[in-house]
Amino acid sequence: MNPSAVRFLKGHGTQNDFVLLPDPDGSLELSERLVRALCDRRAGIGADGVIRVAPASGGGFLMDYRNADGSPAQMCGNGARVFARFLVDAGWQPPGTFAFMTRGGHRTARLGLTGDVSIGMGPATVGGRSTATVAGRGFPGTAVAVGNPHLVCLLDGGQVLDDLDLTTAPTFDQELFPDGVNIEFVQPVSAEHLRMRVFERGVGETRSCGTGTVAAAAALLAAGSSAVGAASSSGSVTVDIPGGTVVVTFGPEGATLTGPAEVVAAGTIDPAFWARSL
Amino acid sequence: MNPSAVRFLKGHGTQNDFVLLPDPDGSLELSERLVRALCDRRAGIGADGVIRVAPASGGGFLMDYRNADGSPAQMCGNGARVFARFLVDAGWQPPGTFAFMTRGGHRTARLGLTGDVSIGMGPATVGGRSTATVAGRGFPGTAVAVGNPHLVCLLDGGQVLDDLDLTTAPTFDQELFPDGVNIEFVQPVSAEHLRMRVFERGVGETRSCGTGTVAAAAALLAAGSSAVGAASSSGSVTVDIPGGTVVVTFGPEGATLTGPAEVVAAGTIDPAFWARSL
Repeated sequence: MNPSAVRFLKGHGTQNDFVLLPDPDGSLELSERLVRALCDRRAGIGADGVIRVAPASGGGFLMDYRNADGSPAQMCGNGARVFARFLVDAGWQPPGTFAFMTRGGHRTARLGLTGDVSIGMGPATVGGRSTATVAGRGFPGTAVAVGNPHLVCLLDGGQVLDDLDLTTAPTFDQELFPDGVNIEFVQPVSAEHLRMRVFERGVGETRSCGTGTVAAAAALLAAGSSAVGAASSSGSVTVDIPGGTVVVTFGPEGATLTGPAEVVAAGTIDPAFWARSL
Repeated sequence: MNPSAVRFLKGHGTQNDFVLLPDPDGSLELSERLVRALCDRRAGIGADGVIRVAPASGGGFLMDYRNADGSPAQMCGNGARVFARFLVDAGWQPPGTFAFMTRGGHRTARLGLTGDVSIGMGPATVGGRSTATVAGRGFPGTAVAVGNPHLVCLLDGGQVLDDLDLTTAPTFDQELFPDGVNIEFVQPVSAEHLRMRVFERGVGETRSCGTGTVAAAAALLAAGSSAVGAASSSGSVTVDIPGGTVVVTFGPEGATLTGPAEVVAAGTIDPAFWARSL
């Protein structure tokens, strides 16, 4: 299909930003090239990724997420908030709690008519110790799996988060993390509050990383309890990231990530742009 | 006025990109803060600048251009193409040649119902010699004024444009350019064709700079004729920049810059975003 004028919304969750494409009859075909063109910050609309909102085969809706390089991805915690906010704003779902489909399986959203959105992120599993190195300085950390691999480095009192130079990639144990690792640098504020910066594998420092905030919160709680394994069955951590603030809560079903979802603009994509970008 | 839903378009000229705000009754009030919010590439729509399209007091239309930092600017050659393309696409001006107003005075646009747009850029004045230094290496150049100051450095055969490291600012003669200078590095392809990269003062390397392409073309023609002063009264130069290709033509009225103007998307800005960003 080469539609005459495709609808879109631009929005963000803690400054992780998305082009959202409502696709009520599931007919939109996205090429890798088109996704790259849409995400191009100068020649396109500009975003970290594209979210196609389509009907799921088993009922409800599918979050069809693509990275800015055009590759399909399982899921994105910050994007899921914008996706869920759209479903309620558009009247496609009533407010409350509902399940939606991703390439990584079912997830759950909880939100009202306005305000923050909570997304079920699944379990966070705290693993062994390892070290990240920034500019020759070692930062001891804890491996945490949240579907994807993380290494969470808690800074001690004398280290200042804002001073870290993350313009070049930190180094890490390639044997422990053969597929790379997302690295969080965490300054604890209290037992239930932390500030963090994140270096995402293959990307660089970003203003927000949903699974990274879950990993950091799990590591902070584990450091308090000295536990290894699934994160403590309950507890809540406020996480300040450069792009805003979220809250991570752990319960019997795993981690829940709660934060803002902002829609900035909506409209249609120029048909000539769409056609030449396919 | 705090409008319920402000219209916008996103477009670019050779990857210099803009949020365009049609304002047919001239009632939109833009704060510096709002312009910054709109141009924010993650929390807003994202652009190099905002162009409000308003009626001009003497008839015709005003290109009210603001930089991404919120400050008003006289004019932007790449933005003027997108502005003129909107006027014709929207039916606010018939295709052909028409004048429009900027903070820098009247300019002229020429365009058809589709295709490239030509903008009158005024005179380009070739001045004396000076040198830019990149990573300790000196690049001899020629000063060119196109409303704003430029230093155009023609590379010799042995120097490769793509190898230049422009991640840090080149240094230049601060006495000759007390307000800074835009620096173009130019690889001549023929007497009427050049490739260039540009380091814009206060910004860094960009994918395109309208006055920079005019300055580079004027310097290339002057190098051919050994002339100093107003650029040769006729001549045409094709300029390849990272963001695309433009053509600069010199005639009795000064320089004309011809290039593409692409509209990518159009729609409305979320009223809550607008209200909280004012």
